[in-house]
Amino acid sequence: MGYSKVDELAINTIRLLAVDATFKANSGHPGAPMGMAPVAHVLFNKFMTFNPKNPDWINRDRFVLSNGHGCMLQYALLHLFGYGVSLDDLKNFRHIDSITPGHPEAHDTPGVEVTTGPLGQGFANAVGLAVAQAHTAGTFNKPGFDLITNYTYCFFGDGCAMEGIASEAASAAGHLQLGNLIMVYDDNHISIDGDTKCAFTEDVMKRFEAYGWHTQHVEKGDTDLEGIEAAIKKAKEVTDKPSVIKLTTTIGFGSKLQGTGGVHGNPLKADDIKSVKEKFGFDPEKTFVVPQEVTDMYHKHAAEGAAAEQEWNQLFEKYGKEHKAEHDDLVRRLTGALPEGWQTKLPTYKPTDPAIASRKLSESVLEAIHEAVPELMSGSADLTGSNNTIWKNAVDFQPPSTGIGNWSGRYMRYGVREHAMAGMMNGMSAYGTIIPAGGTFLNFVSYAAGSVRLSSLSHQRVIYIATHDSIGLGEDGPTHQPIETLAHFRALPNMMVWRPADGNETSAAYYVMLTSRQTPSIIALTRQNLPQLEGSTIEKAIKGGYVNLEDKEAQITLVSTGSEVSICLEAVKYLKDNHSIKARVASMPCVEVFDTQDQEYRLSVIPDGIPAMSVEVMSTLGWEKYSHEQFGLNRFGASGAYKDVYKKFEFTPEGISKRAVKTIDFYKDVKPLRSPLNRAFQQLI
Amino acid sequence: MGYSKVDELAINTIRLLAVDATFKANSGHPGAPMGMAPVAHVLFNKFMTFNPKNPDWINRDRFVLSNGHGCMLQYALLHLFGYGVSLDDLKNFRHIDSITPGHPEAHDTPGVEVTTGPLGQGFANAVGLAVAQAHTAGTFNKPGFDLITNYTYCFFGDGCAMEGIASEAASAAGHLQLGNLIMVYDDNHISIDGDTKCAFTEDVMKRFEAYGWHTQHVEKGDTDLEGIEAAIKKAKEVTDKPSVIKLTTTIGFGSKLQGTGGVHGNPLKADDIKSVKEKFGFDPEKTFVVPQEVTDMYHKHAAEGAAAEQEWNQLFEKYGKEHKAEHDDLVRRLTGALPEGWQTKLPTYKPTDPAIASRKLSESVLEAIHEAVPELMSGSADLTGSNNTIWKNAVDFQPPSTGIGNWSGRYMRYGVREHAMAGMMNGMSAYGTIIPAGGTFLNFVSYAAGSVRLSSLSHQRVIYIATHDSIGLGEDGPTHQPIETLAHFRALPNMMVWRPADGNETSAAYYVMLTSRQTPSIIALTRQNLPQLEGSTIEKAIKGGYVNLEDKEAQITLVSTGSEVSICLEAVKYLKDNHSIKARVASMPCVEVFDTQDQEYRLSVIPDGIPAMSVEVMSTLGWEKYSHEQFGLNRFGASGAYKDVYKKFEFTPEGISKRAVKTIDFYKDVKPLRSPLNRAFQQLI
Ligand SMILES: [Ca+2]
Ligand SMILES: [Ca+2]
Repeated sequence: MGYSKVDELAINTIRLLAVDATFKANSGHPGAPMGMAPVAHVLFNKFMTFNPKNPDWINRDRFVLSNGHGCMLQYALLHLFGYGVSLDDLKNFRHIDSITPGHPEAHDTPGVEVTTGPLGQGFANAVGLAVAQAHTAGTFNKPGFDLITNYTYCFFGDGCAMEGIASEAASAAGHLQLGNLIMVYDDNHISIDGDTKCAFTEDVMKRFEAYGWHTQHVEKGDTDLEGIEAAIKKAKEVTDKPSVIKLTTTIGFGSKLQGTGGVHGNPLKADDIKSVKEKFGFDPEKTFVVPQEVTDMYHKHAAEGAAAEQEWNQLFEKYGKEHKAEHDDLVRRLTGALPEGWQTKLPTYKPTDPAIASRKLSESVLEAIHEAVPELMSGSADLTGSNNTIWKNAVDFQPPSTGIGNWSGRYMRYGVREHAMAGMMNGMSAYGTIIPAGGTFLNFVSYAAGSVRLSSLSHQRVIYIATHDSIGLGEDGPTHQPIETLAHFRALPNMMVWRPADGNETSAAYYVMLTSRQTPSIIALTRQNLPQLEGSTIEKAIKGGYVNLEDKEAQITLVSTGSEVSICLEAVKYLKDNHSIKARVASMPCVEVFDTQDQEYRLSVIPDGIPAMSVEVMSTLGWEKYSHEQFGLNRFGASGAYKDVYKKFEFTPEGISKRAVKTIDFYKDVKPLRSPLNRAFQQLI
Repeated sequence: MGYSKVDELAINTIRLLAVDATFKANSGHPGAPMGMAPVAHVLFNKFMTFNPKNPDWINRDRFVLSNGHGCMLQYALLHLFGYGVSLDDLKNFRHIDSITPGHPEAHDTPGVEVTTGPLGQGFANAVGLAVAQAHTAGTFNKPGFDLITNYTYCFFGDGCAMEGIASEAASAAGHLQLGNLIMVYDDNHISIDGDTKCAFTEDVMKRFEAYGWHTQHVEKGDTDLEGIEAAIKKAKEVTDKPSVIKLTTTIGFGSKLQGTGGVHGNPLKADDIKSVKEKFGFDPEKTFVVPQEVTDMYHKHAAEGAAAEQEWNQLFEKYGKEHKAEHDDLVRRLTGALPEGWQTKLPTYKPTDPAIASRKLSESVLEAIHEAVPELMSGSADLTGSNNTIWKNAVDFQPPSTGIGNWSGRYMRYGVREHAMAGMMNGMSAYGTIIPAGGTFLNFVSYAAGSVRLSSLSHQRVIYIATHDSIGLGEDGPTHQPIETLAHFRALPNMMVWRPADGNETSAAYYVMLTSRQTPSIIALTRQNLPQLEGSTIEKAIKGGYVNLEDKEAQITLVSTGSEVSICLEAVKYLKDNHSIKARVASMPCVEVFDTQDQEYRLSVIPDGIPAMSVEVMSTLGWEKYSHEQFGLNRFGASGAYKDVYKKFEFTPEGISKRAVKTIDFYKDVKPLRSPLNRAFQQLI
């Protein structure tokens, strides 16, 4: 212990960088950085091990700023310790095309681990990072080789503490006894509406105790550096529970408005800035000041981190000699490449194979590939038996003391916590050694929408296994039957939505989902059985859309997905027998992947000259892009046996045919009749 | 107290109705009804006051089954007490077009208060019902006239307890000291993945204590009717805290598989049914048996409820003499009609009025109408100053002991709890005396997607005030800038998505949102200023879409919403000046309302013969329905000053014009060029 003037100077430097950057941007949140600068200083300089010159070193300590609006705190630290964030970058805070956006984005800024700001997300990400650490340590550490030993630290505020996702993740973390996870709760009594007493009067520490966390309270968070250090030290010593330190701070410490909502989300006024700089002994005329002794102190710590990485690299080299397979596996995982030949394990099907629900086909894929792809961690939000997300000999990821699993287990029991599952998976993916897949009903992926969006924005290879994908789930009824869900996630950039029609398409989906390193996926799977189609192969389906049934004389293209493809194939027969109409069928398991094919190929699937009609048993929104007319369900479903429900809404060969006839008639006079794939201009993507 | 054989018989009757109905449906959840029949019997028969012949009586006690998968428990009770649910309805459980769907739906079944099943929703609804009761009592009760005195009871299971929405709502309920709210936690140690010890090992009661709840534990929930009664009685006596009773039960009590996951979500096997009927002293050969003495007992209680309503009606009549204004106001509220003439308060604007952000225009509406529409309760998820959801002299809805509001206050401080806010608003709306409006950023309405969906499915008049509606929010960046959000909610049936372009359109939006009794709304509002448009009026905008700028010689229709309408109007000038092209502008503040206009009107807005191009600064998904070409943003946004961000993505007069020129050229040879509103067949709605 022992803190000197330089520590104080460093803390005030951080505070003033946040003050200057928000003032220059005329936008942003100075309050949290000013309040949390002391704990950030102690944590980064006394506890965390990292090498700013290699932000990807696998055994670095992780830091997550869940109250991401306070990102100037993080940007200031990254600059001061020597990451690739310059003083100019700080000056460009919140300016267009800068690497210092208004909330931390992992893919923009070196040293930012996860993308935060939407409240509660960072909290769940941190739990996921801690799960990943425990699992990776459990898998790779060997006697004499404590390879993976990092901690995950997370700051969060009242906003995160109120969000349901953080409650879910905290409960999960307590159950999982994540001793490698240390959080700091910024107890500043202020949220946007003012004093937290207007809405948030619970006993937060008691709640965390109820979850099974170790809790502490540092009362003088603005000044008590020794107390902060002691609390973090104590938290590290508790290895069988996650720790939370309630740190009572003054938001906007030093400002004339300190302790009020006035410093939360607005830059300080000029006269206030002058006053706070004087109070801290800085020249009030200068901006973005970094005293040399602060730089020296932080660069010294950074150098220690670089040395630690050096030492680790030597340990890892030695590890490679004694545990070559594990060494090579870890090296490979860190590149993001899958093991060679893994894809040969993917099941293929013939039309004579039995009809199987696609949730079971997905299970068969997991069963077939789980040994070949050891970084795949599956799981479910308490719907294992319904989502079919587990393989036969899977071991639970559980604290060994529970007697029902261990740290190297690859099956996650997320509980009924869809949002936390998604947020944790984002953290698990960000760690770098795991591909997480998690199951729930498609309808309840919506509960996780906040995190799903961040999977996409932050380029995480996360797989959402979403079963019971339509009115085809039957009796559970409208409360459980997705209508809007696929339109929602198709509208989300950098998200693949897969809805396979049979076994080969399911295997194709897994091929693309697992090999797309920067893109998450949702795979929508049926409860009901689906026949194996004559026209499907993995090779065709990995294009996202393909001709499942060709007819060069066709008068219409039926464009369909998932469970409706086989009904369209029946409709082709019905049209021929009853209307002497020839039709062809395009199966479109993933429109986002189809969109990336060249135009010539795409026009071979949905050609000019004949109308196309889409058939999907949910909202038609968006299908206009791939068809002239749309047959779907723009209302809620119904509770009943699935065949009765399909019949009620006319998703039958007759119902499809009736509309196909009208479509052909409606377009017979339009010249030229272009494929909807022809556009006047390129979309911004 | 004092329980006899008839009580036991009644309990077993409920259990066996659930057993028979799930067996007949070959689907459903017998476990929870069998475990919770004892507490349901005690609660309904000893405590709850209701009149099955008038399920709408305002002062009835409310019951919410948050673990809605156990709905056969509720359907059995409704039948036995004499609601409009027949034995045949029970036999049609989970059959198509029955009034006994797979999860409880308020609009299908008399006596079901709210639509539940998606876990955690009923919990939040119950908190909302209790808020509504406290507010309605605070508004209408007078000395000598305890008009509104009902309790809200709610059952929930482990699944609900794990969901974030329930955590949020529980924290809010504790803060609000809702003494009129009594919950029963079905502690049966089983969820779908099996024993809760695999994922859920927290101390639930300690957590609720941390929230400020009164907690109790009844250990023998299968048999201890006296204990259950004493606990509910005690809970009623605690008037300054919500109460939760942890009831340890045996899931599937009586089955051979009792206490296991085997009875959670699957009907009992035939031999098990035989055995359980014998165990309970029922004839194993008979199904759907209701002993006469059970009917007699329950009908006696129902008659007492009818008498209580009678007595209440007399009290209310007397109240009408002493408090005529309040009496008439309550009578009116219960019809769902707004006060006569309220709409004359809606602000109107001229083009010479200053440019104002639509979030501020929304605030002006609230300011103008809040006295005329006393049932409107506004609020925000801790973004009051950003959402502009409060009027000047608004009083907080708060427990008086906090010193910052009272029970008749009409402004809700939801905290950073978007999902609970939405679920609570569904309950508040369901109560019957309130129109709730709640604010957050549009991007974070997604956090509430689970509840928003149920607003639509259950026809609640709930208003989501969603500010910061696009990249126009600027500096906060991609984590906060909606892209997929409007597509998501436009795909949701029975949801109106409004995005007004100026003041008149904002007033129009409120007119339609407040007068649509069966449909919820999301109103998307800007952070940036918008000019008042020459072509807008309330009368035009309430049609959902209209011609804002006409030109009979136009070569293209620009179809736009919100902040992009005024840029389109500038593009019209740019096209004329730079390309000698004439263009017209259709403003489409609400496509769902536009869809309900007759075809002739709609074709006058988006006519045949010239191409239409949509302009909206987010996902283009769905705009194909109203335009030939779409200009939007199918990628994430950027952090920066909003004008820089608009420029980056070319949402400028030049950027729009460039694409309009290409669109005109692209369609010049197509004959006939039909409006996209012409369709080959009707959609299912
Ligand atoms: Ca705070
Ligand atoms: Ca349970």
